[in-house]
Order: sequence, then structure tokens, then C-alpha cells
Amino acid sequence: MPTGVKIAATPEQLAGVKYDADGLVPAIAQDVRTKDILMMAWMNADTLRMTLDEGRMVYWSRSRQKVWRKGDTSGDGQYVHEAYYDCDADVLLFLVEQDGKGACHTGEYSCFHRRFGGE
Amino acid sequence: MPTGVKIAATPEQLAGVKYDADGLVPAIAQDVRTKDILMMAWMNADTLRMTLDEGRMVYWSRSRQKVWRKGDTSGDGQYVHEAYYDCDADVLLFLVEQDGKGACHTGEYSCFHRRFGGE
Repeated sequence: MPTGVKIAATPEQLAGVKYDADGLVPAIAQDVRTKDILMMAWMNADTLRMTLDEGRMVYWSRSRQKVWRKGDTSGDGQYVHEAYYDCDADVLLFLVEQDGKGACHTGEYSCFHRRFGGE
Repeated sequence: MPTGVKIAATPEQLAGVKYDADGLVPAIAQDVRTKDILMMAWMNADTLRMTLDEGRMVYWSRSRQKVWRKGDTSGDGQYVHEAYYDCDADVLLFLVEQDGKGACHTGEYSCFHRRFGGE
């Protein structure tokens, strides 16, 4: 099983993250090796801290309204290598190692497997 | 100046895109050559259609509440090569050619130039 990197964000960095009206921020997961975009989901302040502390992607599921530790049920965990925030500090980007068969619940490697205009 | 590709999305694909309560969908711009993530911003149904029709990234500016044709003022346009939507059809991904000095208003190439935990 891959292992992630625990990331020591500064208190200023954590306090600077801007959440939306629901207390959420978009989090993009990018494959650290292929640089493919795997998925985008949402984090709140708690799951961002868990993600950085555990070195593993922990999202907030909007549909289930609960902590979603990616891979706990599917086995397809995402292990963090690097973490970035954008110029407005309202979008997060994680370079991850994808475990298992892929990121998508459909069985595809990336959630972005459908292309406008067809193949 | 680079030129983008006009993308003929099907009516079904366009109708299938899921917008949030404000009528917006997140749009990720990824450099088609380096695969670096340049930025994430928002589109509505109109600016998505403009983007696909013009082959150039057209966002909706939430702060200014207006159409934001990327690069019209900065010169840093983004020209579309490929366009994808995710498994829930509520996040878009565009592979683009970045013109000018970069995507970020700070002058950086990518908006994700700041890293948690320092360099």
C-alpha cells in the first residue's frame, strides 16, 4: 500500500483558506506521476486538516453529509505527496498516488473519462 | 497567437451538465503540454457554450458578475484543445494552450504556485 506524506501547513496557511457559504472548498486530486486529473471533490476545514495530518485524501461528501476518507470502502485510497492552494486560497490542489483501480466509482481511472464532442 | 479547437458537444452532453444553485459549474484549466493545472474558475451554461464554440476559455466572474473572456484584458488567453466532464457531470476539465505569461493575475504561470508547508 502506498504511503502519503504528512504535510505541516502553517497556522497562517490554514487560516487563510477561504470556504464557501457551506464551509467547503474544492479539492482537485492530480496523479503525481502521470499528472492526469483524477477527480475534484470538496473538503471542509476538518477534512483538510485530516488530509494534511494523515497524508491521505479525506473529503466531505455533500450527498451523504459526512466525512469521506477516500478508499475506506472501495480500497482506492489517495496518498498525498504535495499540496497547493491557489492565488485566492479558495481552491486546493493535491498531487497524489492513487491506490487500487482508480479514482472513479464507475471503475474508470479518472472521473474525467467522458469527452465533449465524443472521442 | 495560438488557436483553439471548436468542440461540437452534443445537445445531450450540454443538457447533462449539472449546475449549482447559482447556475455555475467549476472549470479546471490544465496545460495541454506540461499537464500542469493552471487555474480553476466557474462557468455558466452560456460561457460553457461560448468556450466550446470559440475554442477559448470563457468563464463567469463571480466577483464581477459578468462574462470573463480570459485574456481579453491581460492578453493571457487560454485556447482549448480538449474538453471533458466528470462522472457526475458537475465538474469540467479543459486541456488548453496558455498564451502570454501565464494564467494567474499575480504574474505566475499557474494560480497554484503556493504550497502548504512551504517549499
